Amino acid sequence: MKAIMIREPGGPEVLEWTEVDDPAPGPGEVIVDVVATALNGADVAQRLGLYLVPPGASPYPGLEVSGRISVLGEGVSGWQVGQEVCALLTGGGYAQKVAVPAGQLLPVPEGVGLVEAAGLPEAAATVWSNAVMTAHLAEGETFLMHGGAGGVGTMAIQIAKALGARVVTTVSGADKTARVRELGADTTIDYRTEDFADFGPYDVILDVIGGQYLERNVQSLNVDGRLVIIGMQGGFEGKLNLVELVFKRKSVFGTALRSRPAERKAEIVAALREHVWPMIEDGTVRPIVDQILPLSQAARAHQLMADSQHVGKILLVNE
Amino acid sequence: MKAIMIREPGGPEVLEWTEVDDPAPGPGEVIVDVVATALNGADVAQRLGLYLVPPGASPYPGLEVSGRISVLGEGVSGWQVGQEVCALLTGGGYAQKVAVPAGQLLPVPEGVGLVEAAGLPEAAATVWSNAVMTAHLAEGETFLMHGGAGGVGTMAIQIAKALGARVVTTVSGADKTARVRELGADTTIDYRTEDFADFGPYDVILDVIGGQYLERNVQSLNVDGRLVIIGMQGGFEGKLNLVELVFKRKSVFGTALRSRPAERKAEIVAALREHVWPMIEDGTVRPIVDQILPLSQAARAHQLMADSQHVGKILLVNE
Repeated sequence: MKAIMIREPGGPEVLEWTEVDDPAPGPGEVIVDVVATALNGADVAQRLGLYLVPPGASPYPGLEVSGRISVLGEGVSGWQVGQEVCALLTGGGYAQKVAVPAGQLLPVPEGVGLVEAAGLPEAAATVWSNAVMTAHLAEGETFLMHGGAGGVGTMAIQIAKALGARVVTTVSGADKTARVRELGADTTIDYRTEDFADFGPYDVILDVIGGQYLERNVQSLNVDGRLVIIGMQGGFEGKLNLVELVFKRKSVFGTALRSRPAERKAEIVAALREHVWPMIEDGTVRPIVDQILPLSQAARAHQLMADSQHVGKILLVNE
Repeated sequence: MKAIMIREPGGPEVLEWTEVDDPAPGPGEVIVDVVATALNGADVAQRLGLYLVPPGASPYPGLEVSGRISVLGEGVSGWQVGQEVCALLTGGGYAQKVAVPAGQLLPVPEGVGLVEAAGLPEAAATVWSNAVMTAHLAEGETFLMHGGAGGVGTMAIQIAKALGARVVTTVSGADKTARVRELGADTTIDYRTEDFADFGPYDVILDVIGGQYLERNVQSLNVDGRLVIIGMQGGFEGKLNLVELVFKRKSVFGTALRSRPAERKAEIVAALREHVWPMIEDGTVRPIVDQILPLSQAARAHQLMADSQHVGKILLVNE
């Protein structure tokens, strides 16, 4: 098969469409013939050499795919060869085939096309595991999503809204602002000219910036507020004000989806199927796709991601 | 009645045994005629002017008492005048009488004397709410308690052991080391000569030091580890390494019991009655009392606390 290899750490140009060995299914795994995959921030970090690939994971980037099951490994039941699925991966999605633990497979939600389904698992798992399973976002609470226009952001706005939260998000530019409002954001903050701390307090914050925002994030949490840090685009450390934490019972969580063991991923995937897939099937939550490129042009897709003009997911398809 | 007033922020000498107005029971409250109260770190912080008294709370220190109910306020049921009780307070325990929301009352556990019961509610609530309700300490996990010889420490060691955790604690001196080992500590660390970070990783850390320990606490947490900061004896801020947090899914909680609203205190008290009182009644967890002084000598008791030679609780009794 062919896959996108990272020739060496660097810019989008290090991504090369290369002939490699087919994956073999381990016990409890299936092989998915990949129809589409999607870009995630972690792919960019991996390309830059900043994100360690977990032991045993595929060396190729790609944390989610859609496609058709072509091989069932030992001990897999409940899935059939030929079935259309999407999947949460630990890596390897930028390829023609990928081995997936059966617990990380999901059916394609009714009403969603097979290609656009590729962009659902990672964003939905990120939002549900962090905002709900970790931070217990509840109806009536105020939720701040940093970066509302991205893949995770567009999913977070819709899910938080479906849960009955008041949704605040940072976004820049009139076009993106209009799009995130249409998805359900109650308040939008232009982070270039406004300070999100002036719009709090927030009960739950989902943050991809890290160090640069840490103090203001903690400061602007409500009593009993929860900050979940899932990215460090703005620095790897920050100052933590313990007085805020202790007297207002605030908490700070860090999480990365990719490094979780397979059993934990399976728990999250089961929760998606139970809670988020119905929201997608009844139209409450929609897959937001910015554009679709051939997988062989992954380098161009990474450049589009860096240009940050997109709203929602950038997908890659096998031709 | 008489109560201990804090004349002005300062050393133990600012505590004065003074004639004051009796408390009146609000709706849902009872008056407890105080037999004994106990010292807590928060009393010292309040005396120093470092701990804001929550709105509506008694101005006198004292976060727990034992005694007898003398008045039932409007709407209180399930408790009788004359009944022996202990209670978790928002303040006011250093007095002859105190008004207590009925949800914060507990029966005196069978087998425990009325005086020694005064030292149970705050330590048990601190340990149970933080290590169990917040950090979900589970059987087989490793638990680090900073300062194992104090009131919270001696309770934490016993409860964590009863839950099936491996218990590590910092302590100094041969006498205190022997005492905490007898209570169930599996590993003791002399913080004057040894670094607790060398004895990790820890699944749950309960910390009273704050800023000075923050980096090492976070560093020495296990994957999925939880740090709960309940005191700031070593500084009000620290540096937070987000790489540790994100890639190892660590979390940092800050909590203070006193500022929680009455409904939250009532939830914790109900959990104590259900889970911890049986451990006390069957002898698994014992009240550890260092010494008992007259309440009028609160200043001397605060000096003993500052000298830090005690193991367990220092109690104050009305004569």
